[in-house]
Amino acid sequence: MPTVDIRRGRGMRTGIATVCLSGTLEDKLTAAASAGFDGVEIFENDLIAAPWSPGQIRQRCLELGLSVDLYQPFRDFDSATQERFAANLRRAEHKLELMQQLDADTILVCSSVAPDAAQDDDLIAEQLRTLADRAAERGLRIAYEALAWGRYVHTYEHSWEIVRRADHPALGVCLDSFHILSLGDDPAGIRSIPGDKLFFLQLADAPRLDMDVLQWSRHHRLFPGQGAFDLAGFLGHVLDAGYRGPLSLEVFNDVFRQADPERAAVDAMRSLLTLQERVVANRDTAARRPASTIELPAAPELAGHAFTELAVTETSGPPVADALAKLGFTHTGQHRSKPVQLWQQGEARILLNGGGRSEQDAAGEPAAAVNALAVESTDPARSAQRAEALLSPVLPRNRGADEAILHAVAAPDGTSVFFCPTGEHGATWSADFTPTGNAADTGTGLTGTDHVALTQPFDHFDEAALFYRSVLGLEPETTAEFAAPFGLIRSRAVTNPGRDVRIALSVTVLRRGEEWAPGVPAPQHIAFGTDDAIAAARAMRARGAPLLEIPGNYYDDLDARLALDPDLLAAMRAHNVLYDRDEHGEFLHFYTEVLGSRVFFEVVQRIGGYSGYGAANAPVRMAAHRRQRVTGSARRPVHT
Amino acid sequence: MPTVDIRRGRGMRTGIATVCLSGTLEDKLTAAASAGFDGVEIFENDLIAAPWSPGQIRQRCLELGLSVDLYQPFRDFDSATQERFAANLRRAEHKLELMQQLDADTILVCSSVAPDAAQDDDLIAEQLRTLADRAAERGLRIAYEALAWGRYVHTYEHSWEIVRRADHPALGVCLDSFHILSLGDDPAGIRSIPGDKLFFLQLADAPRLDMDVLQWSRHHRLFPGQGAFDLAGFLGHVLDAGYRGPLSLEVFNDVFRQADPERAAVDAMRSLLTLQERVVANRDTAARRPASTIELPAAPELAGHAFTELAVTETSGPPVADALAKLGFTHTGQHRSKPVQLWQQGEARILLNGGGRSEQDAAGEPAAAVNALAVESTDPARSAQRAEALLSPVLPRNRGADEAILHAVAAPDGTSVFFCPTGEHGATWSADFTPTGNAADTGTGLTGTDHVALTQPFDHFDEAALFYRSVLGLEPETTAEFAAPFGLIRSRAVTNPGRDVRIALSVTVLRRGEEWAPGVPAPQHIAFGTDDAIAAARAMRARGAPLLEIPGNYYDDLDARLALDPDLLAAMRAHNVLYDRDEHGEFLHFYTEVLGSRVFFEVVQRIGGYSGYGAANAPVRMAAHRRQRVTGSARRPVHT
Repeated sequence: MPTVDIRRGRGMRTGIATVCLSGTLEDKLTAAASAGFDGVEIFENDLIAAPWSPGQIRQRCLELGLSVDLYQPFRDFDSATQERFAANLRRAEHKLELMQQLDADTILVCSSVAPDAAQDDDLIAEQLRTLADRAAERGLRIAYEALAWGRYVHTYEHSWEIVRRADHPALGVCLDSFHILSLGDDPAGIRSIPGDKLFFLQLADAPRLDMDVLQWSRHHRLFPGQGAFDLAGFLGHVLDAGYRGPLSLEVFNDVFRQADPERAAVDAMRSLLTLQERVVANRDTAARRPASTIELPAAPELAGHAFTELAVTETSGPPVADALAKLGFTHTGQHRSKPVQLWQQGEARILLNGGGRSEQDAAGEPAAAVNALAVESTDPARSAQRAEALLSPVLPRNRGADEAILHAVAAPDGTSVFFCPTGEHGATWSADFTPTGNAADTGTGLTGTDHVALTQPFDHFDEAALFYRSVLGLEPETTAEFAAPFGLIRSRAVTNPGRDVRIALSVTVLRRGEEWAPGVPAPQHIAFGTDDAIAAARAMRARGAPLLEIPGNYYDDLDARLALDPDLLAAMRAHNVLYDRDEHGEFLHFYTEVLGSRVFFEVVQRIGGYSGYGAANAPVRMAAHRRQRVTGSARRPVHT
Repeated sequence: MPTVDIRRGRGMRTGIATVCLSGTLEDKLTAAASAGFDGVEIFENDLIAAPWSPGQIRQRCLELGLSVDLYQPFRDFDSATQERFAANLRRAEHKLELMQQLDADTILVCSSVAPDAAQDDDLIAEQLRTLADRAAERGLRIAYEALAWGRYVHTYEHSWEIVRRADHPALGVCLDSFHILSLGDDPAGIRSIPGDKLFFLQLADAPRLDMDVLQWSRHHRLFPGQGAFDLAGFLGHVLDAGYRGPLSLEVFNDVFRQADPERAAVDAMRSLLTLQERVVANRDTAARRPASTIELPAAPELAGHAFTELAVTETSGPPVADALAKLGFTHTGQHRSKPVQLWQQGEARILLNGGGRSEQDAAGEPAAAVNALAVESTDPARSAQRAEALLSPVLPRNRGADEAILHAVAAPDGTSVFFCPTGEHGATWSADFTPTGNAADTGTGLTGTDHVALTQPFDHFDEAALFYRSVLGLEPETTAEFAAPFGLIRSRAVTNPGRDVRIALSVTVLRRGEEWAPGVPAPQHIAFGTDDAIAAARAMRARGAPLLEIPGNYYDDLDARLALDPDLLAAMRAHNVLYDRDEHGEFLHFYTEVLGSRVFFEVVQRIGGYSGYGAANAPVRMAAHRRQRVTGSARRPVHT
């Protein structure tokens, strides 16, 4: 079996189809080159709308260091009708001539979806052989691909059978992971195709969706690692078969189609780097060798949330500090050179940064926002090296002469992600804080940070999930969607295997407009763990914490649905504690009101192996937060 | 056959499920009442998240003049397991108690989707009979509905069979048009169900989508008249069967879920008023009686575009006027009291209004925008009465003492829609213009206005289509979606039967953000008709009109695909004329550059019965307009 060196820059070439990116062809080529791709597939519609002639496009690609690896697609070539076939051949000749000007040596011909599609393997093989002859005369090649919704040919096995029958050196197969994996075909059969007949490989991931496969393909593809397909396993088969062409992405996605192409191209490259790492890891596991031969630094193990930093203003800072005190936190440290306070309870640590990024919401209300999240890494420097190798923006750190070095990168939503050493905080970042000498509060039973929940910018939800997966080595959990009072929400959490780092990402399924966008805009929250949610709520209420009031109807419904122990139900009702359960355990949790304009806190108690985030209760929380926002406004008072 | 008087206010009650609307229950009830609904269905999740007790909700509904017609849904009631059934019955008892506080007399019980669903008609009938007994003790009723994706019961015929077997006065059927029409069931069978067993009717339209029926139902329902279902035919069957309950809307729609509920409720009411009119019209046709018994004034026939008005500024006005002159228009009139110019060529008329609404785009570029469109109506006063009866905002008209009365209403995007008398313009609106005395230009062969194309606000695309359909009596054409350089676009045109009024609506399929939203934001254009597009383009170019340049690649592809007559192709290439064809005919068209920041003009030639708008060419146009915008900016020059 051949072995392949897929290290970056020395091994396989990377490519991206222009259809993956938003903008005009001019925008797309620039973005692909900036992200470091070696080549592009030129999507025909992009070329048609471009002001440059094919020769000018070739010149532009040369300037950018891009090869044109594929011209695509050529549709509905074969035909049961000779007259139609002649017209198709004429059309193809025009495109072959264009390819010579473009300096693209391979054209993708996909299986026909036309009513007149040929339905005879030998006839299709004969027609493709005719085309391959024409291509060969020009030094070009034909890569034949089975569309999952092809009229007659829709599996890669069938496309290979036709290519085998045609038996022409300028005719090979194009494999597209979407078409194969969406149908549930076994990709292991690819190993039986000779490597030199695998002319091209298009990679795309996708979420599992129960819908028409054409619509699924045209609108919902994702970059590898963002969806549900086993791309590493797929690619392993293709490489083992001897494929030596580029790893090229072909992703039709409604969001990427309209998002910043420079960012999408970086996201795409990150997906390919991580995919290659996973293929190497699979091989090393199979070969019982370590994965150390790949250039990408392996993701160090993480060991919990070190701290979370909130940017506050002069106006929003004091109420947030007051709320933390009432939640049982102690102001234990003051930064030596910056206006930053350290608040602690158990292993939960919050920094209030009065000098960091601050935001104002549309109404000009003073805002508090999550500025940074810090995770403990067993090797912070390597974490940062990995992040940089995965094209994450490394953040400079303004620090005093003898302050701790903190490695940080920017997440797709702009949040700083710090990598701190595990344990022994006194020796590192917290040494930058002068103890306040405040007596430690007795606390309210909070043990640490359970998760940080961040609403993502609409265009960057899948990018964010891949960032945390690839850069931090977290694993995504199942994506959930639920109907909230102001529109659908999609959420996805990423966790480490020990589940002591959890980041919950969410996004509105449709971007909301300005006309009617009430509720809390882009909410963020920090959830603290406890072993007794009801006791914590009781203690916090006694201290006057701004806990969120939950409607009685919620508890009546809980009773109707679950027939919980009446004492537990009464305690939850008295303390505004919500409840969820799954097949592994139970979940008790409660919230504060919103502080500033978008941040709130949550307290969670996990019983047994409950692994969720109480998403079923989120709409109740959102309606309550909305009420908090309109209280005191011109709205009608609640009947009492 | 029973007859039903469904005139508004005297006949059938109207209702809306709270799940149709965005916001909290408080927001939803207010919106439903404002739009004039008689009652609501309370969606359970809305109640659970509400701060009011059921009694307080009842009180609020009383204040608002709303009845609570249905409490819904109660899921997974029947069970093959006795223990599970006992738990479900306990749960149901809690909800029956709640309904008494809420003063809701009917609860919707839908067919089970649970793994333990009973799969025996007699067992389900027995279990429902038990529930009906409990309900009857409280004076309540059970409406049993077949979900299209129910585990065992998924057709209305099956739900009726079970209700028939149960034979309990407090148990009847709930019909939901979506569940029935999505499966392609024949609704004529409803006529065989006794009217007094039809306890409730839920109405929803939907586009035809090839996807999982549950997802289709939960995300893509529409108000009647916005989708592809024959709701009037459906409702006719239900009324003929003797149904006497409310016409209640239950529409799960991702956009409506996040859009302004006050506007969505008005849209909903407009859909019900129009639906009733259509049912009456069907009956009158069947009975050979005129439709004059309905209170809604019938839509007068329209007879073409009278004029289109552009709001311009001091800066944008002169270049637009200059462009019109170069397109062969003549400035023929000046308004007697306002800074409004009338420009004419053939039957094409443009008003340039320097005193109307003006806009600036984000970059502060002086804008021109379509301010008003005017159609010729055979009865302008009745058109306006109909618009008002359909809850459209009637616009006041500031006019001088002896100026013409013009009836106008506001479309959902804020565009004014004027109703002008047919023909004889001199006697009406154009009498307000003093002739300039300018010699009529020889023109460039434009004959009139072919269509006006308006990009709609994201939240209001379906509302806009229904507005033009119901208020103006236009018929929607098929919805099309296409991939454009900056994201997907959905478009839908509405026309009158004579096809001399055409309005093309479009919207981005996903709302675009601020980070990467190039191209022309929310473009609008006016398309003029001609009998010779190439001659018109030649004449306009000779006059120096700012025509949009189309890439050579476009013509190379046309040649490859269609093998057009070489002379025609050469002429199109020389004059930047685009081409499309359908089974009825051909389409030649070309564009101007964007004037101001969002408006441009198009010239179209329809040959034979071509009925489209050249949507296939829109991406080429968009890329070219984008190039126009970046020309002269910091972007790299095009290679030449």
